[in-house]
Order: sequence, then C-alpha cells, then structure tokens
Amino acid sequence: MTTLDTLGELGLIDRIRKETPAAIHPGTIRGIGDDAAVFALSDSEFGLLSTDMLLEGIHFDLTYMPLRHLGFKAVAVNVSDIAAMNGLPTQITVSVGLSSRFTVEAVDELYAGIRAACEAYNVDLVGGDTTSSRSGLVISVSVLGKVDKDRITYRNTAQPNDVICVTGDLGAAYLGLQLLEREKQEYLANPDMQPSLSEERAYLIQRQLRPDGRTDIIHELRDLDVVPTAMIDISDGLASELLHLCTQSGTGAVILDENIPVDDQTYLAAEEFKISPITAALNGGEDYELLFTVKPQEFEKLQNHSRITAVGYMTSTPDRIVLATKAGQQTQIKAQGWVR
Amino acid sequence: MTTLDTLGELGLIDRIRKETPAAIHPGTIRGIGDDAAVFALSDSEFGLLSTDMLLEGIHFDLTYMPLRHLGFKAVAVNVSDIAAMNGLPTQITVSVGLSSRFTVEAVDELYAGIRAACEAYNVDLVGGDTTSSRSGLVISVSVLGKVDKDRITYRNTAQPNDVICVTGDLGAAYLGLQLLEREKQEYLANPDMQPSLSEERAYLIQRQLRPDGRTDIIHELRDLDVVPTAMIDISDGLASELLHLCTQSGTGAVILDENIPVDDQTYLAAEEFKISPITAALNGGEDYELLFTVKPQEFEKLQNHSRITAVGYMTSTPDRIVLATKAGQQTQIKAQGWVR
Repeated sequence: MTTLDTLGELGLIDRIRKETPAAIHPGTIRGIGDDAAVFALSDSEFGLLSTDMLLEGIHFDLTYMPLRHLGFKAVAVNVSDIAAMNGLPTQITVSVGLSSRFTVEAVDELYAGIRAACEAYNVDLVGGDTTSSRSGLVISVSVLGKVDKDRITYRNTAQPNDVICVTGDLGAAYLGLQLLEREKQEYLANPDMQPSLSEERAYLIQRQLRPDGRTDIIHELRDLDVVPTAMIDISDGLASELLHLCTQSGTGAVILDENIPVDDQTYLAAEEFKISPITAALNGGEDYELLFTVKPQEFEKLQNHSRITAVGYMTSTPDRIVLATKAGQQTQIKAQGWVR
Repeated sequence: MTTLDTLGELGLIDRIRKETPAAIHPGTIRGIGDDAAVFALSDSEFGLLSTDMLLEGIHFDLTYMPLRHLGFKAVAVNVSDIAAMNGLPTQITVSVGLSSRFTVEAVDELYAGIRAACEAYNVDLVGGDTTSSRSGLVISVSVLGKVDKDRITYRNTAQPNDVICVTGDLGAAYLGLQLLEREKQEYLANPDMQPSLSEERAYLIQRQLRPDGRTDIIHELRDLDVVPTAMIDISDGLASELLHLCTQSGTGAVILDENIPVDDQTYLAAEEFKISPITAALNGGEDYELLFTVKPQEFEKLQNHSRITAVGYMTSTPDRIVLATKAGQQTQIKAQGWVR
C-alpha cells in the first residue's frame, strides 16, 4: 500500500496520464497535461475544456470567504485555465454539493457571484448539478472555450532564448491568505474583537478572495499580434508553473529575482510576516496571473505594456532552472510537493 | 432564512435557472433545463456538455461499492445524459477529491473503472483535477458529446398521442440498493457473517453498482431511422422523469402499469421487501434507462425491439399524468421531493 503523500499531486496526475490510452476520436486534439483539453471545433478554431473543483476546508474557509466572492472565484479560476491556452471562455457548468446548514439565501449569494463572473468574462451558465453533501460545500466548475487554431498556446513549446513574461504582480494572494488566517486566529481567541484589517491591505485581501482570470491579456495579445510560444496560468506559484513549462518544453530557465513583479503592499506584508516577498511570489500560489514565453524579436511589442513584465529567459540546459540575483548568485528553483 | 429542504432540489434548480440571464454567445443553443447543454459545433452537428457529481455518503457507500465499479458508474451516468439528447459521448474530464485514507492502489482501482467505461463508451479521458479532500471521496465528471442537428432530442418537444417508450427494465437498481443496505446492516451487527447475496440476485446488485449508459439504443435508433420527439434518462425513477417530459412539453400522460418492464428478479426482491415492483420502477431511480416518446406512426419501427417497451401515451391535458391499471383505475403520478 502506498500513501498518496508519497506520490504527491503531480506524481498522481503523472500516473493517471501514463495509464490513459491514446485518444480514439480524431476530434481529440490534446488531452491530459495542459491547462485545458483541446478538441476540434470549426475549420479555424479549436474548442477548449477545463475543470476545477473547490472543496470547503481545502480551497476555502467560509469563516472569511464571502459566498459571493467564492462564486466569482470558482468561475475565475476556470476562466484562467482557458486564458492559459490563449483562448476565451464561452460556456460554463457549475455543480454544487450543499450540506443542510446552507440556506436558500446562501445559495443565492453564491450564484450572484457566479453570475457576476459570467458577466465579467462574457460566459454563459449552461448547466450543472445540485446535490446534498454530507459534509461541507463542494463546487465543481467546467468551462468551454475557444481559440483560433493559429493562436493556440501549449505548455510544451517554449524554446531556448525565449523571453519569460508574467502578467500583473505575484505573491499578493498568498499574503492576503496569511492576513485572513491571522485575523481568524485572533477572532477565535477573542470573539469580541473588531476586525483590524486596514484599508492598506485591501489589495492583498481582494487578490485572495476575488482573483481575476486574465482574459484582458488574451485580447491584448491578439491586438498586438503576439502569439506566445508557451503559456500556463500561475495557480500554484511561479516556481511550480515555470517547472511545468521547462519540463514539458525541455528547456532550462534563468529568472532574475529583481524583475519579479511584486506589489508594494506585498512587500510590506511580507516584512510583517517575516517572509521573503520573492518566496511568496515563487511558492505562494493563487495569483492566477499568466506565465508565458515569447520569441526575443516579439518581445519588443510587449516591452511598454504596463501589466506584462519580462522576468527571465529560457535556456537550452533542461536541468538548470535558476533564480539569479543582481550580484550574480544563482539558486536552483525547486518543485513543490502536494499542492492544494 | 429559508432551508433548502423547503425548496427541494428541483425548486432550487428552477430558482437558479430563472435567475440566469439569456445567453450571450450565439454558439449557446440550449442552456439549463435539459440533460445536457447544447452548443454550436459544425455545420451538421451540435456539441453537448453535461456534468454530474458523486459524493461519498450521498451517492455511494464504499462499504459495498468497489472503487472500480464506482469509476465505471461515474462515467456511465454522464454518458447517459448525452444519450438522453440522442447524442454520443466523445471526451470526458474527471475531477477527484481524495482524503488521506485513500492509497495510491485505491486510486488505481478507481481509474481502472474509469478507463473501462471510456473503452466501453468510446470516450477519451482528456483532463480533470485532483485535490485532497477533508472528508470523503468526491468525483465530478464532465462529458462532451455530439449529435446530428437533425437528430437532437430535447425534453420539451413531446406531442399528444406520442407513444411513451422505455428501454430495458426498471426498479432493479433500487432493489439492488435495498439488498446491499440490508447486507451492510447484517454485517455491522455481526462482522463474522459470510456474505449471503445469492447468485439469483446478481442482476439487481449489478444494476446498482455498475449501471450502463444506453448508447447502444442511440446507435439503434439511428439505424432504424427513428428520431424520438422527446427524451430524458431515468436517473430518479420513471415518475420524476415523466413529469419532466410532460411539464416541459405541456402534455399529460397515461402510463399502463402492466406495461412497465420489470425484471423477474425485481419482482421477487420487491415481494421480499414488501414493496410494489411498480413503486420501485416509478420512484426507485438509478436505472439509467431512457424514457422517450415517438410519433404513433414511427412506433411500428420499434415494436419488435426486445429492449424497447411502449408504456403509455401522451395526452393533451397537462394536469393529468396518470398510472392506469388494466381494470381501468387511474391514479395521479406525483413528483418526488429532494432527490439525491
């Protein structure tokens, strides 16, 4: 008997993938191993399908997660997977398992968030499943999307010398979680306390509770006529996602630590929690930004873009995936274990 | 505050559907309210998307449900939703939430069943999500399928005088569950007991543990050049599904009780459990057979089919959905409450 911990989530996915036979349908273009599955749609477009499950006590804590935000987030994290293929979402299904402690009003709040996200990302809610749950709240969202055949972007097609880019800033969602967890512990110790989360921390809290799927970037890449060579969304931290791109593309990478985009609030909170902001960016997760690579000659089209930052470059030495300081020091970037 | 029980599952779905805005995408052909969502695929075909969630303690009990059968069943019940649109499945995603008590070997068993079902139904496993779970096992499957535009079959298009047909036989899965539950109680009372489930009950047990999605019927309807006027799969019992067809089509129905197909084993077990076999067929659920209607002149193509039985006919009086005995007695068929 082997425990799941010894294998880890990535090991488990790898095991499932290896045992999965080759596709039968000619319409199956790409299966397990990318942000979304790819299927034949029309002459000029591919269809995309992705799914994500959120479980109470694992992915969210209802003591500080408002149901409306949770509904929004459940859609946003799925939309993010479609964006990671350079695609745009079109339809979603939402399945919900509810224990008897939930009221109709609570379910209304959850769906108000789901609808708000559908509106924000231009997606139709087309179905789902509702069921009772013996324990907590379970949410499973599946999303359909589409992408022009000549713009689809996989994980395994980065090349040496490609510029590595990230959107937005990193580490904020992780520090938002730390703030919320601390607040919860203080509340549990003293239920009469007043919430002390200041306005200055609002950005971090929002990044954790109501992340955004970056479909805006997908539109902008199209407008700028840039097709990334590889792309993935940053759900488990920059380190983990970079390792996916490198392993699947057979490349190495150099990341310049001073280039990693970190918000001022993230810096301040990291200091307070005695965490390196770079560690938060590398291993924190849940930022739902995009990590992508472009050919060096393409990068000039992006270099003045305020929400896209070049953080390093791909190399031809697959084993060397390193973080480099300005002083020239290099440290190997390591994989994480079981990730929620 | 309103409890979920006062609303019921169907009331909840209705509430969600009513609050869902009209579709934005022209590619969204049909949303919430049928067995699967329908989207534009090619000039001659529609795409189908459906999803079902199975939760431990609600939908299955691992004390008697082998993981391999559970994997098969999770796929089969989704395939059944695609069949209910007169379509065939093409790709699935499987998301699994696992608590730490599951071993790698247990997950292997689950996926062996999933792969067996993929082979049986000619479906590609293209993705999913794996996560840890705080409580029990959670399985969420989404399935893509397709159907010729001129063969798609909705729930709301039955007409008065259409012949109501069911495939296979009904009530067996429910009695299989009763047998397994009784066995479990006996085992809990006396853990040294030997299992007493006889060979003669094998069919009932199999119907509960390893149901089949009826894609065979979809192929045969095509071969016989029959397009049903309306169709739904029987997951919650004949009564509940018939009410859906009638309510959505604006028809009434007469079901002849002596025509309802019930297997001999179901009769025997029903007698033992002091349940009417007709009640088991009407309200038992989990048979995953198909309930469909055809125009009277089309029915002759089906009347010699060994696995299709005419059980009644649609009428033009929406409020009267009745079960009729040979003696001429009629009783109104009622809706169920919250269904698992």
